[in-house]
Amino acid sequence: MRIARFSIDGNVAFGAVEGDSPDSLVLDIIKGIPYTDFELSGTKVPLKKVRLLPPVLPNKVVAIGRNYAEHAAEMGNEVPDVPVAFFKPTTSVIGAGDSIEYPSFSEELHHEAELAVVIGRMCREVPRERVKDVIFGYTCANDVTARDVQRRESQWARAKGFDTSCPLGPWVETDVDPGDLAIQATVNGEQRQLGRTSDMVRSVEDLVVHITEAMTLLPGDVILTGTPAGVGPLHVGDEVAVTIEGIGTLTNKVIKRG
Amino acid sequence: MRIARFSIDGNVAFGAVEGDSPDSLVLDIIKGIPYTDFELSGTKVPLKKVRLLPPVLPNKVVAIGRNYAEHAAEMGNEVPDVPVAFFKPTTSVIGAGDSIEYPSFSEELHHEAELAVVIGRMCREVPRERVKDVIFGYTCANDVTARDVQRRESQWARAKGFDTSCPLGPWVETDVDPGDLAIQATVNGEQRQLGRTSDMVRSVEDLVVHITEAMTLLPGDVILTGTPAGVGPLHVGDEVAVTIEGIGTLTNKVIKRG
Repeated sequence: MRIARFSIDGNVAFGAVEGDSPDSLVLDIIKGIPYTDFELSGTKVPLKKVRLLPPVLPNKVVAIGRNYAEHAAEMGNEVPDVPVAFFKPTTSVIGAGDSIEYPSFSEELHHEAELAVVIGRMCREVPRERVKDVIFGYTCANDVTARDVQRRESQWARAKGFDTSCPLGPWVETDVDPGDLAIQATVNGEQRQLGRTSDMVRSVEDLVVHITEAMTLLPGDVILTGTPAGVGPLHVGDEVAVTIEGIGTLTNKVIKRG
Repeated sequence: MRIARFSIDGNVAFGAVEGDSPDSLVLDIIKGIPYTDFELSGTKVPLKKVRLLPPVLPNKVVAIGRNYAEHAAEMGNEVPDVPVAFFKPTTSVIGAGDSIEYPSFSEELHHEAELAVVIGRMCREVPRERVKDVIFGYTCANDVTARDVQRRESQWARAKGFDTSCPLGPWVETDVDPGDLAIQATVNGEQRQLGRTSDMVRSVEDLVVHITEAMTLLPGDVILTGTPAGVGPLHVGDEVAVTIEGIGTLTNKVIKRG
């Protein structure tokens, strides 16, 4: 099931996305909260009539760096012995169709297409065999990065944590196997990144075990699993799209911060 | 004014701390939320009868590394050209009297006494002369760090973000000038860290400007301003106390993670 969060006429709701043709998708409004038992209301609205919101309300976003060998190499880095884990703040999260604001303190903004894991249950110290039980689903993410700032600042709170640096969406797909999905980024329709999730150095299971060894994850928390090779610049006016096979496409425009 | 958050008989409230003798402090229960206009109810409870909670509910905690030259030197680091900014997640926050759980993946836990800034207003791109307007007050923090993990992992999400790694408290002092306060840490009553906030490389104003250049801060968000020299190990059974002149003492015991 594909679960979106949206607003219409000032009301916010979750809805199950139905239909196959991008132009005729409808949302069946969900009664209750998707992380527990819920029902479909049967009340449907065309997706085109709503504004999509970030599909989750995370308490935290834990992101992983250098998790595709080819991307590590293109940045001049080795694949690290242990995963590189950092946080993106919730104030950085935006949804599909929202604008990425080019920050004033950077002149080198980069896209990074990533598979995002959405956590469904409060958990800590998750054993490998239980990882599937704590995952609610998957969505597309763009780990937007101020590359020049990342080079200058040893910890990445500003380089990867500025407002609008974490587009998530368009919805959460609950029924997809993340093991071998095509993942790509286009800028203005031109392909820039293309990879397969099977090339991740550490799998989704590895990452959930590694992160929850240290900290509690809450329902709605998000793990970004790293980006494949091909990262590159974004400019004001660009339209960047992250597409993951079996999930969907997350599209955002880059604007000047107003 | 000193504003604490506490629970008594299962109810959670904010209260103004009154009195001078540590043994006879009372809490005047606050009607409303302290970040906006509020009144004191006149209903008072002895501090000894309540359980103190973290005095703020942050959306995010932004921490600063290497902000005292002597501490940077003791770790073998230079003072960085730009502040080192990283996040501690809200799941790491505990209050005064709560236990620091020694994590399973570390064998070298360290205390780091820090002045914590509590933000009072939603803000971004704060000009230096407006910084005082967005600050609600100050509290004590312990930026508990798994030093061995910090050495192994280039980003510090696990080393400084594990559950219970962010003690805050005992309350927020709204009427103190942070410019030149004694700050110390003791372990089992023995002094380990002693410094003055006037030795910070970047002032509170500098840090608020630097952080909000990139991201929005929300009421209750916290900035940890770095630790003076003298950091050192914590062991199971230790009692660690952070005292800041004019604010108070934050005490926590170290226990084995259960």
